[in-house]
Amino acid sequence: MRIALDAMGGDHAPEQTVQGASDFLQNCPDENITLILIGPEDAVKAQVKKHPFDPTRIEVVHASQVVDMHDRPARIVKSKRNSSLVRAVELVQSGEADGAVSAGSTGALLSASLFLLHRIPGVRRPAVCPLIPTAHGGFLLCDAGANVDVRARDLVHFALMARANSIHLFNHPRPRIGLLNIGTEAGKGNELTVRAHSLLAEHVDNFVGNVEARDLFAGVADVVVCDGFVGNVLIKIVEGMVLHVAGWARDKLKQHPIAQLALPVMRPALKDLAQELDYEEHGGSPLLGINGVVVIGHGTSSARAIMNAIRTAVRAHRENLLESIRRGIEAHLDIFEERHVVTTA
Amino acid sequence: MRIALDAMGGDHAPEQTVQGASDFLQNCPDENITLILIGPEDAVKAQVKKHPFDPTRIEVVHASQVVDMHDRPARIVKSKRNSSLVRAVELVQSGEADGAVSAGSTGALLSASLFLLHRIPGVRRPAVCPLIPTAHGGFLLCDAGANVDVRARDLVHFALMARANSIHLFNHPRPRIGLLNIGTEAGKGNELTVRAHSLLAEHVDNFVGNVEARDLFAGVADVVVCDGFVGNVLIKIVEGMVLHVAGWARDKLKQHPIAQLALPVMRPALKDLAQELDYEEHGGSPLLGINGVVVIGHGTSSARAIMNAIRTAVRAHRENLLESIRRGIEAHLDIFEERHVVTTA
Repeated sequence: MRIALDAMGGDHAPEQTVQGASDFLQNCPDENITLILIGPEDAVKAQVKKHPFDPTRIEVVHASQVVDMHDRPARIVKSKRNSSLVRAVELVQSGEADGAVSAGSTGALLSASLFLLHRIPGVRRPAVCPLIPTAHGGFLLCDAGANVDVRARDLVHFALMARANSIHLFNHPRPRIGLLNIGTEAGKGNELTVRAHSLLAEHVDNFVGNVEARDLFAGVADVVVCDGFVGNVLIKIVEGMVLHVAGWARDKLKQHPIAQLALPVMRPALKDLAQELDYEEHGGSPLLGINGVVVIGHGTSSARAIMNAIRTAVRAHRENLLESIRRGIEAHLDIFEERHVVTTA
Repeated sequence: MRIALDAMGGDHAPEQTVQGASDFLQNCPDENITLILIGPEDAVKAQVKKHPFDPTRIEVVHASQVVDMHDRPARIVKSKRNSSLVRAVELVQSGEADGAVSAGSTGALLSASLFLLHRIPGVRRPAVCPLIPTAHGGFLLCDAGANVDVRARDLVHFALMARANSIHLFNHPRPRIGLLNIGTEAGKGNELTVRAHSLLAEHVDNFVGNVEARDLFAGVADVVVCDGFVGNVLIKIVEGMVLHVAGWARDKLKQHPIAQLALPVMRPALKDLAQELDYEEHGGSPLLGINGVVVIGHGTSSARAIMNAIRTAVRAHRENLLESIRRGIEAHLDIFEERHVVTTA
């Protein structure tokens, strides 16, 4: 199995991406798994030298361009064809790689994947589906930001795709699927969620109904479905709270002289907690609905996040996630078709 | 000034509501402010006896019925006309009270207020607007759940009403108004927020543009505008995190033997923090856009929350919040009208 890594994706590339690649290989004894690192050859090779890579398990592919935040995602294949991000997806298209990983722009990666790999037949909207950690192991949030305006039927697809993800990547034999809503009763919510509720109940196995944001951290569902606007607000508020409440707590403790004395001994425990809460460490998300294994890592792209994102790609390929999604969508194709009532004369 | 209090509203009524009334009067030296406690006479008077009320500042008004969670909000005035919640609003309607406070059902209070007091002319959708505490004093979130499906122009009204609230109740001379969105650039977001952005820029003073959920706790805006679905998800995720992350942190600390030893000395500091983070303690919210002072307290209705909600009502009346909202809406009535271009011949 060969995984293509966009060595230039993320805030700390190529240092952290190459280190993540090295960490992945160190921890992966299966020698059939090799990595293709893509980026400006000199820059990538300079990083590669710093790590004990097994030369039979790594290849560097030159790509002169780098996608940056000023690039328009929708035009990325045309404007930066020779970028490390686009080249990584191209290697999947040509069959030279079994999966691609990038911690670059989600929009650009989605756009390149749609253009080069297309959708799984029947899927209208690909989605992203990160794991949000909780004390109970976490839940998958789908969609977390790829689609800001959706129809109720799209939410059913998100549920079907995220369900496959949960089964194959997180070993949930029968994940509980919840609809993010502002009340638990069936009639609650806005037009979108009221409609989605009945469709989900009809089409999705183990649909546990509406779930409220306050209960997500108590582990009420393994997969939480919502539109990408709400999903994106949700992950960013979690991120903001982790970031700011930690500082706020520290300030508060400093106002209590005795508590302040205890701060140093708390540090290792608080660091543990912060790391667990940090969803960015948790391996990225496959672009669900794309007809190829493409994993978006998180923008902070610590070496650990990159290593975990590569693992996600390996697992998606090995578990044949695409086939599972394809079957799930196929079994419910009728939700996007006009229904014809056949009457027997 | 007379404020009517629904003594039966909230999870811990009438004990906590009556204690909140008592605490309010103890802390309010202005003897012109009196309270009307509404509920089943025996139940309320039994509580009143337990506190050192000045009999010239309190009156108990009998109401035999109590609104519960099984009542349909839209029918509340018909189905429970003699409930403490409906009677509180009626006293405002008749002029016997200058404001009403309830920690009961938001839906029922909104419905009763719409039916009995109507909207401020020009307002299409009343909204709720709680303070979300942060280390920087907090921000007002509007709408936090009264309206789940809105138009871009409704968001402008939310901004104008919440702005008046911020000025009069929180002493912000010129509050910064932000639009909750999934990116800070002007073109970002879903259909609703893209449209709302340009309307807000045109109609609202000191509009600071899009704000992202992750930055809310860093104090980027004094008023944050969004639809009620997103707003409700936001406050509930904050609530859920405060609730669950605290327990999670405790478990984590217990895994570190030395940190665990320090737990007892941390307790007062952590309690302080939890209380500051708890938006339910922060005084409830006026029903913005209703043509009368009606304050919804939070459902947990601790005595402190009730005391703060009464203070909010007093302040809304004293500052003439309604008149300020009326003027704000009037100055921008054109956003809900067809625009006629007048050409001089």
